[in-house]
Amino acid sequence: MPKQERAELTRTAILDAAAMVFDERGFQGGTLTDIIAGAGVTKGALYFHFSSKEEIAKAIISEQFTIWTPPEDPDLVTLQTAIDLSHGMAISLRNNPRVRAGIRLVIEQGTFSTPTPDAYQNWIGLVQTCLESAARQGDLRPELDPVDVATFVIASFTGVQISSEVLTQREDITERVTMMWRITLPGIVPPRRLHKFRPEGSQVAEANGVSRS
Amino acid sequence: MPKQERAELTRTAILDAAAMVFDERGFQGGTLTDIIAGAGVTKGALYFHFSSKEEIAKAIISEQFTIWTPPEDPDLVTLQTAIDLSHGMAISLRNNPRVRAGIRLVIEQGTFSTPTPDAYQNWIGLVQTCLESAARQGDLRPELDPVDVATFVIASFTGVQISSEVLTQREDITERVTMMWRITLPGIVPPRRLHKFRPEGSQVAEANGVSRS
Repeated sequence: MPKQERAELTRTAILDAAAMVFDERGFQGGTLTDIIAGAGVTKGALYFHFSSKEEIAKAIISEQFTIWTPPEDPDLVTLQTAIDLSHGMAISLRNNPRVRAGIRLVIEQGTFSTPTPDAYQNWIGLVQTCLESAARQGDLRPELDPVDVATFVIASFTGVQISSEVLTQREDITERVTMMWRITLPGIVPPRRLHKFRPEGSQVAEANGVSRS
Repeated sequence: MPKQERAELTRTAILDAAAMVFDERGFQGGTLTDIIAGAGVTKGALYFHFSSKEEIAKAIISEQFTIWTPPEDPDLVTLQTAIDLSHGMAISLRNNPRVRAGIRLVIEQGTFSTPTPDAYQNWIGLVQTCLESAARQGDLRPELDPVDVATFVIASFTGVQISSEVLTQREDITERVTMMWRITLPGIVPPRRLHKFRPEGSQVAEANGVSRS
């Protein structure tokens, strides 16, 4: 196996093992020893790739922002895009330990040691893009500021996923995200435009034969 | 000083010191040694009152639920009661280390070690009481279930205060809570009843000369 490829595999093994460790025990609770053991690598191999536990955590956190690249045509970005992104994130939180670890690290970092607003600001920026597009399309109540609404949507989603974990180990996360949009859409969208949007996400709406307008 | 009274003072000193320690360093980061030093008590005095760090944390968490006793007349409980409670909580989060420590312990406990849904369920129950009363008063959209809405309100508030801490060290928490209600009220309340409610809380509304209807 070429050296480069082997190095890449080692890096992936370290990140996968770290995700499991951080997801289960958090940043404080998880140790480099656990990560080394989980990845089946030597201490030397780990330090070849990462200088510290913090650096591994940062790599996992930053991965979350590679999952969405906005389409080149800004008209294709709508408020429904934000709804669908939140549902995609909810599903990833159930299925993907790396996403789960990333979110846990963001919240833990933010709430419990040095607050680092970067991750929140990235997510807010993403939703803001959707809302600015919605504003141009006449789908945002004109009295609302896209930044305020984006800040609320991210705050709300953060709380929904935390409480869903505590209350049902995230079993009801999809329903809770749908409920979040059902309750918030009437405050975000002008009444006559409300019928355009699917709080359950467009994939679910389409699977149920609800046509898009 | 009578023995009983001295014991009470010691207990209060321990809880105050523990609140400062947990607020700053979280449950994992805060140690009994820190708490003993902060309270200026002996190890023996601490163990006379509490058997473990967990027990101190639980005492701080349970304090949050002593701040509100619903009025005997259920008609006096309204949706505005829930709005005002959330604003009161936001102010306490800025001013009161015990409340801040309690919230941090709930979130940390929930997200990071053994999830304990009790605190969330208590808060949800509180808001549910307000919403059931609102439903009887015609102020809840009839298609909504009070438990679903209460679960969302608590989730949303949780996320709002976490993100406000990360983004502005809670400087904007009052504005963010107001924005939360501005955005969610149209989805919760029938349109013709919306004018009755003050997203900024009734105290602020009254101070600004907005009459209650």
